[in-house]
Amino acid sequence: MLKLYYAPGTCALASHIALEEAAATYETVRLSFKSEDQKKPEYLKINPKARVPSLVTDRGIITETPAILIYVAQTFPAAKLAPLDDPFALGRMQAFNSYLCSTVHIAHAHRMRGYRWADDPAAIAEMQRKAPQAVGQGFDLIERELLRGPWVMGDVYTICDPYLFTLAQWLEADGVDPARLPKVMEHRQRMSHRPAVLRAVAAELGASGN
Amino acid sequence: MLKLYYAPGTCALASHIALEEAAATYETVRLSFKSEDQKKPEYLKINPKARVPSLVTDRGIITETPAILIYVAQTFPAAKLAPLDDPFALGRMQAFNSYLCSTVHIAHAHRMRGYRWADDPAAIAEMQRKAPQAVGQGFDLIERELLRGPWVMGDVYTICDPYLFTLAQWLEADGVDPARLPKVMEHRQRMSHRPAVLRAVAAELGASGN
Repeated sequence: MLKLYYAPGTCALASHIALEEAAATYETVRLSFKSEDQKKPEYLKINPKARVPSLVTDRGIITETPAILIYVAQTFPAAKLAPLDDPFALGRMQAFNSYLCSTVHIAHAHRMRGYRWADDPAAIAEMQRKAPQAVGQGFDLIERELLRGPWVMGDVYTICDPYLFTLAQWLEADGVDPARLPKVMEHRQRMSHRPAVLRAVAAELGASGN
Repeated sequence: MLKLYYAPGTCALASHIALEEAAATYETVRLSFKSEDQKKPEYLKINPKARVPSLVTDRGIITETPAILIYVAQTFPAAKLAPLDDPFALGRMQAFNSYLCSTVHIAHAHRMRGYRWADDPAAIAEMQRKAPQAVGQGFDLIERELLRGPWVMGDVYTICDPYLFTLAQWLEADGVDPARLPKVMEHRQRMSHRPAVLRAVAAELGASGN
């Protein structure tokens, strides 16, 4: 059976929602970042990067959100979560998810995990100070150009949607005023009514404690 | 016809090589980062992110290296550049490319483009100081766990290979001692003999000036 390793409040929520959308049979394993579960030897055997999410399959382990999302879409084609047979549409979808992982999530990470790229506390504080601007720029582009509506790719719901929803959870904490992002906020609201989203969020809250 | 916008010395080389491997009919447009071509209004219409690569197709534009790579693989299936019909293998491949774009390339970017995440010159200098360590950690994981050999995914050449080759070009400039990465260096050497790689590199050098 599929097994998703996640920690509450992380980007693993996107994969969790996708599994729910796909009506997959799976189980979850909750890690506590406060207890640094992700750095313990037993988890490093699952994911030597000490990150979440990790998806254990019957053939091996897949890491990295964009990869898990496409795996779920392709493994459960009945859920129609990605335009798998249309190279252009799939390319556009992957471009959006790549932008989230390599620009938007990274901008956010400079508020929380600046120690990855600097040791000096003053430099880490400077990254935290600028994070609202960098995250805001990423979301401004999404608002202005990338989010077509009602879903990211237009009329069809795809694996871009749970990923955007997940990163948009962090806007207020990242110091970005949601009022400047009406389309993103409308999308976040729309997502929050989907049964699959409610189930994934409830499962993570229910197991909570962090 | 496909049109690739690139700048010499950037990650666009990966897409350039993939197009050569696919025997695609395409043209290239060279941007000069020194002249800040990527910020000029005519290019911002192509890619509002002011980044390379961008691939213009007959249906629209695709950006982001992992997305262009999968688009090329799927559009030219005869070249067998990706395990398109095997969800697990494709997921592993995408996981590798996601790791390159969101961790390894980002670590490198802290040497060159720290201004994305800080304004204070001292913080930018601190990121530059730590970049060799962050880039080195990313490549250590590739060396130890991810690069199966002879190609990234094992016996079969995929779109992971030109991407790894491209980022491995920067190791010395990033201050990482190649001697600690024998498998990565052997891969770089092996790649450098492929006709497609030679053609792409020659085309970028030939158009050079930067």
